[in-house]
Amino acid sequence: MDLKQFIRDIPDFPKEGIMFKDITPLLANKDAFKHAIDALCEQYSDKQIDYVLGAEARGFIMAAAMAYNLGAGFIPARKPGKLPYNTIKAEYELEYGMDALEVHEDAIRAGDRVLVVDDVLATGGTAAAKAKLVKEIGGIVLGPAFLVELTFLDGIKKLEDFDVFSLIKY
Amino acid sequence: MDLKQFIRDIPDFPKEGIMFKDITPLLANKDAFKHAIDALCEQYSDKQIDYVLGAEARGFIMAAAMAYNLGAGFIPARKPGKLPYNTIKAEYELEYGMDALEVHEDAIRAGDRVLVVDDVLATGGTAAAKAKLVKEIGGIVLGPAFLVELTFLDGIKKLEDFDVFSLIKY
Repeated sequence: MDLKQFIRDIPDFPKEGIMFKDITPLLANKDAFKHAIDALCEQYSDKQIDYVLGAEARGFIMAAAMAYNLGAGFIPARKPGKLPYNTIKAEYELEYGMDALEVHEDAIRAGDRVLVVDDVLATGGTAAAKAKLVKEIGGIVLGPAFLVELTFLDGIKKLEDFDVFSLIKY
Repeated sequence: MDLKQFIRDIPDFPKEGIMFKDITPLLANKDAFKHAIDALCEQYSDKQIDYVLGAEARGFIMAAAMAYNLGAGFIPARKPGKLPYNTIKAEYELEYGMDALEVHEDAIRAGDRVLVVDDVLATGGTAAAKAKLVKEIGGIVLGPAFLVELTFLDGIKKLEDFDVFSLIKY
């Protein structure tokens, strides 16, 4: 199945000069959505995944469906202040300034195998932050896995320590 | 399976006097997560669901996994300005002031059967807004379905036109 036919270009979003890859038509097409989740999970079906970790908001979509498919638990990474229990935090660079993600400090136990997932690999900053959080709480990072990789942004350079898998590449 | 054992009370979150129901231990437990998704989907397995609609951020988790289970498409409802294509908007009341959710105007076609899902039914405002959006773009609303209902907040009163299902009630 050619999944690229379900991804549309939106010019000048979120700001002028950016050509945004809109994956909502892929998510909305039941066959494309199932195909994408199955193809991503196939890469990890023999990897004894304990948890799938996704970051808000769009990252929750792929990660939750993959956790269900893989028979794993789901762990949310959220913006500071959104998680209700004690958290640890990892910062990452934006084009201008910094942002951060948090996970619950008791989300996993040492040695747990955590698949890090997101919809799009762009600059790699958030994926690197998620992987750092998993390692800080003692987990083993699998992936990161992405639905879409924007190869021209070289995000993979921030993820050199990991075994990155991307289903669709531009 | 007693799912309530996987939901913990967090006092004074997000502000003093609120006892927050934290579902992250349920999401993280692979058996509890699978059981919850399966039990919710069982209610709709014969309902020819075309799409499952969830609102950011936490609503994406249940809705995406349920869409995958039901063989349906997934539709995101997002805060204003977050969706890249043309949208329609529904406002809803907060304790102080208003907020809004948007969906893509081309997300569904007339007559499509859309299951509205969220993790928690509290005051019912966002669920009513989501149902309104589905109807405005011509869809048929199934549900809303919730993982948890806080019955003491009477959110069900805002959803009298619908066939609400909640898996866990407090």
